[in-house]
Amino acid sequence: MFLAKVFIYYKTGVLDPQGSAIKATISSSGFEHVKDVRTGKFFEVKIDTCDKAQAQEIANELCEKVLANPVIEDYKYEIMEA
Amino acid sequence: MFLAKVFIYYKTGVLDPQGSAIKATISSSGFEHVKDVRTGKFFEVKIDTCDKAQAQEIANELCEKVLANPVIEDYKYEIMEA
Repeated sequence: MFLAKVFIYYKTGVLDPQGSAIKATISSSGFEHVKDVRTGKFFEVKIDTCDKAQAQEIANELCEKVLANPVIEDYKYEIMEA
Repeated sequence: MFLAKVFIYYKTGVLDPQGSAIKATISSSGFEHVKDVRTGKFFEVKIDTCDKAQAQEIANELCEKVLANPVIEDYKYEIMEA
C-alpha cells in the first residue's frame, strides 16, 4: 500500500480570488505583516499496490485527468509507503 | 520576507464527504487501485519580517485563529525564506 500526497496549486499569474479575500480579512484583523495569500488543495490518496512505479503512474494519471485542471493549475505529488 | 506553507487537514475520525465523493468518482473511472481519498487545503502566506521567530509566531496565530477550524481540523506549517 502506498500513500500519494498530491498538492494542487494555481499556476503563476492565475488570479486567486479566494486567496485575495483571505488576505483582505487577515489584514483587517491586525496581521499587518501578511503581504500575500495563495490557496491550494491537497489530497491524500491510498493506492493499493506493492509496486512503487505503478503507484507513481497511477498518481500521475490521477493528477492529469481528475484532480488538477491543467489549464490553470499545477500539481506535484510525493509517494510514500503506508 | 518569509513564506509560510500551511497545510490544513481533517482530524482522524472526522468525515470527509468531499474525499468520499472523489473516491467514488475515481473508482468508477477505472482506478480500481485507489482505496481512499482524503482532502485538505493549503495556503502560501508571505510574511514581511526579517525575524524567523516572529514569522513562526504569526503563522501559528493565523492557523489557530483564521485558517483552521480547531474543532475538526489539524494544521502544520513550514517557514522558509522567500
